[in-house]
Amino acid sequence: MPDLGPISERLERLQQVLDSQIPMCAQMGIRIAGLEANGQGGQELRLTMPLDGNHNHQQTAFAGSLNALCTITGWSMTYLELESLGSRLPIVIRRSSIKYHRPVDSTMVQTSCAVPTPEARQYFCEMLQEKGQAKLDLTVQIASFVENDDRPAVAFSGSYVAVSEDAQPPGYL
Amino acid sequence: MPDLGPISERLERLQQVLDSQIPMCAQMGIRIAGLEANGQGGQELRLTMPLDGNHNHQQTAFAGSLNALCTITGWSMTYLELESLGSRLPIVIRRSSIKYHRPVDSTMVQTSCAVPTPEARQYFCEMLQEKGQAKLDLTVQIASFVENDDRPAVAFSGSYVAVSEDAQPPGYL
Repeated sequence: MPDLGPISERLERLQQVLDSQIPMCAQMGIRIAGLEANGQGGQELRLTMPLDGNHNHQQTAFAGSLNALCTITGWSMTYLELESLGSRLPIVIRRSSIKYHRPVDSTMVQTSCAVPTPEARQYFCEMLQEKGQAKLDLTVQIASFVENDDRPAVAFSGSYVAVSEDAQPPGYL
Repeated sequence: MPDLGPISERLERLQQVLDSQIPMCAQMGIRIAGLEANGQGGQELRLTMPLDGNHNHQQTAFAGSLNALCTITGWSMTYLELESLGSRLPIVIRRSSIKYHRPVDSTMVQTSCAVPTPEARQYFCEMLQEKGQAKLDLTVQIASFVENDDRPAVAFSGSYVAVSEDAQPPGYL
């Protein structure tokens, strides 16, 4: 495993990648907030985006911005996983689905994406070594706290693929 | 049915709604391109967005921008349907899914969304009258022409609901 330095530096480098290479991230004000304990014995990656500038006609968060924030959150998690393995393969998103359970009206919108389980991580690593490409299925949530409803405000799932440019044309983020 | 004037004026009003109420639409450069024959006896709504400013680290379209463009396309179609029925109910998106089959690298990205069938339109109208709310399931595509692959570059489907503010809290676009 490569020596990557402290997580704060890794997240700072990732923020620079987003800011410099994907203009909409800066436009939307997307920030890497941290990789922290999730209160359930695991860790989660968190990204934020201000409601200001990302609102809709009802002064709640615009679904397109919410989807973009979730998309970037999963991509960022995949980026960190790949980096841990010493790989710099491009990452593309193949598909995603999203449920908008409730409107989001907090002034700072925050996503969370659980770090993959040891098993998922191991499988990702093996595929990468054996096939030169690997897929990571991730879920991202935007929480909101409402009585009698334990669903997140937004539930997103996406499939991310790390794939060499030789294998197929360069694709999406 | 209300007298809404020519379609060009209706689309211009819709553009003003997007520009004035959803700041990210203007940021992304989203334009209503037209409601035109689809070459198969029906009509489709088309929206565009420039690649410039919406690209990713690979100089193809950023998945978050593509999803937002598709989301707005379906919302716009629902808006026009509601307008035809003389309704101004708020429209919210409940869920969507998207497949990114191929990267999009055209300088002007264009979506298309088929106008609902007469049956779907009739059902939408009846639900609205009977229940005061109604759902429209729509598909949106971003085409690209590649030999030996008749899939669109991007295939999106979304469920849009027109619902009175009394019935539940105001939601998403």
